[in-house]
Amino acid sequence: MLNYVHSIPTKIYFGKGQISHLDESLRQFGTRVLLAYGGGSIKKIGLYDEIMKILNDGGFTVVECSGIEPNPRIESVAKGVTLCRENDIEVVLAVGGGSTIDCSKAIAAGVYYEGDDLWEMVTTRVGLRKALPLVDILTLSATGSEYDSGGVITNMSTNEKLGATFTFPAVSICDPTYTFSVSKYQTAAGSADIMSHIMEGYFSVTEDSELYDGIAETVLKSVIRNLPIALAEPDNYSARANLMANSSIACSGIPEYGKQSTGWPCHAMEHELSAYYDITHGVGLAILTPRWMRYILKKDPTCVWRFVRFAKNVWNLEGEDEHQLAQAGIDALENFFRTNGIPMTLTELNIGTEHIEDMAKHANRGGRLSKAFVPLDVEDIAEIYKACL
Amino acid sequence: MLNYVHSIPTKIYFGKGQISHLDESLRQFGTRVLLAYGGGSIKKIGLYDEIMKILNDGGFTVVECSGIEPNPRIESVAKGVTLCRENDIEVVLAVGGGSTIDCSKAIAAGVYYEGDDLWEMVTTRVGLRKALPLVDILTLSATGSEYDSGGVITNMSTNEKLGATFTFPAVSICDPTYTFSVSKYQTAAGSADIMSHIMEGYFSVTEDSELYDGIAETVLKSVIRNLPIALAEPDNYSARANLMANSSIACSGIPEYGKQSTGWPCHAMEHELSAYYDITHGVGLAILTPRWMRYILKKDPTCVWRFVRFAKNVWNLEGEDEHQLAQAGIDALENFFRTNGIPMTLTELNIGTEHIEDMAKHANRGGRLSKAFVPLDVEDIAEIYKACL
Repeated sequence: MLNYVHSIPTKIYFGKGQISHLDESLRQFGTRVLLAYGGGSIKKIGLYDEIMKILNDGGFTVVECSGIEPNPRIESVAKGVTLCRENDIEVVLAVGGGSTIDCSKAIAAGVYYEGDDLWEMVTTRVGLRKALPLVDILTLSATGSEYDSGGVITNMSTNEKLGATFTFPAVSICDPTYTFSVSKYQTAAGSADIMSHIMEGYFSVTEDSELYDGIAETVLKSVIRNLPIALAEPDNYSARANLMANSSIACSGIPEYGKQSTGWPCHAMEHELSAYYDITHGVGLAILTPRWMRYILKKDPTCVWRFVRFAKNVWNLEGEDEHQLAQAGIDALENFFRTNGIPMTLTELNIGTEHIEDMAKHANRGGRLSKAFVPLDVEDIAEIYKACL
Repeated sequence: MLNYVHSIPTKIYFGKGQISHLDESLRQFGTRVLLAYGGGSIKKIGLYDEIMKILNDGGFTVVECSGIEPNPRIESVAKGVTLCRENDIEVVLAVGGGSTIDCSKAIAAGVYYEGDDLWEMVTTRVGLRKALPLVDILTLSATGSEYDSGGVITNMSTNEKLGATFTFPAVSICDPTYTFSVSKYQTAAGSADIMSHIMEGYFSVTEDSELYDGIAETVLKSVIRNLPIALAEPDNYSARANLMANSSIACSGIPEYGKQSTGWPCHAMEHELSAYYDITHGVGLAILTPRWMRYILKKDPTCVWRFVRFAKNVWNLEGEDEHQLAQAGIDALENFFRTNGIPMTLTELNIGTEHIEDMAKHANRGGRLSKAFVPLDVEDIAEIYKACL
């Protein structure tokens, strides 16, 4: 078990009606609020009106920053920063899924960034010492941005999608009822994202970090059980609640405590797909993950022990032959994604071989994947992309 | 899944050598330190000298408050508060197990308590709004006081042992090597305490809080695996590390999120045993728990589903007959405690029937256990004590 540091200051109000804590959550920081959100979905479900009533009744001054994209762009960050500076904003309120919260984190930090170029803030990660306080209301169970300090921002002009550490939310309001209206496709993609956050860290060389491996397996099993229920009954509170609780812990870093870091290979590869083709993040992860698993198991068969654990503890599979069992676990994962409506090839997304070489190079930026669970080079990564076609 | 609020601001430095963060952890709050500890164990293992060197090298002013008891007394709280006030202490450094940290929390809060009677602060829990910052160095895996805000203080003059919410540690330094020298008896008792913190919340009527039930089962399985290793090889780092990580999460409240609260019946009953007989807390819990389980299963056989889950998911037991399976799980627990050297009857601790009626009345103070997983009245509690003789 390796050393780790746990430090997550975010307060979570979880459950039905927790929006009752919105006023106090904001007011501790001030009354001048930037309200950040994406498209119209929060208006469709009535959440926008509910929030505006609370803010108006409370005498808050509200400046809106809407239209934040699914893969949030650096231009949206710049717009939000300008709005904050021009309006002396004291607290950012993000309402949405991971994209809106990620973008809001970059805005909150960007307000104090002294350079002229906010994309440089993302790429260099220099000058990120302070941020406006951030409160969020979560409407999608997926990225876990509600309980970590990271954000991923896209620059379509340079085909780059990059993560940085901006700031933790001070308060996250996680009400599963806000996810009742999420489409089947986005529910499945979000669940694939949750599972990927776990699997990226689960496949590590460290064998004895039991609490955290156990948390990882629990989250995977719970998503496997609840995603089909949420798809069949979109307003099943228990299923939606379990998915939301899983979402917050999956990307918190906690499931990886005590374990050798892995470089998060599928995320590195998926960010290139999203940067070049603007696809849904969770779908890209679902497509990549089983192919990555088969590739590394073939490249380094000594890692089979971890796949055996995955097959047994997550999928409840049994068998004498370790390699057969490992393959059965991977098959179960791929089948799970397909059964739940996720397109499982890049070809179905109209993605061909045209950018594979560039994407493979970028995915291994700085030799990032040379220290993965099974180390990967550019050729390995290109092969994995090809296996996804 | 019920609503919950997550808010634990404590930063944990976990692992070998994390004492390197002591200077910075204290200095953020000031340089005038109250060093609180128990008996001489921290001197025997060289930790006292290591700490004093860091504090002296860093130019800290140190006031010592030693001799904190295993069931910390209100007199020790009063002594610490006086020392803090007389010496303008800016930060409390607790070095030890749960007793020292609990007592230090009460000291940190007591400094700002405006009344004359600190026992009144504990019993009324009024006036606990502010506390000195607290940093701790953990030397025993048991209570989880390093990652919660509660403390349990004993008043031997009134035979009362009561818990209250004082303050969270700002920083906990959790280095498993400091537990290498813990005796077999205290290691086993501490592990029983960890398991009890989980079982108190696990036996709840709520069926669908999957992440948190999964965390609970993971902790139990990990303690079951690692305690015998730690007893056989006291300096087995991996075993000690897993026990320590389990300790911190077990009493954090996290394993109970989303679940109906239970009143923690075994703790309510054990605190009376400790208050009357000053026994080791974890030993009292180990004796009580299987007897409580058998009693409630007999009183309300409809709760068998939870015992079946316990038998299957924690003890890997299988069987067709639900009640046989439930009993087998309880037997496994009792056998586990006995095999690991815990005296499993009150008679072995020289405890008789003399105080059972009073203890039963006090354990149900305020009708606390009328809302337990299976509600208990004073007669029920007396029967459970008798079954422990």
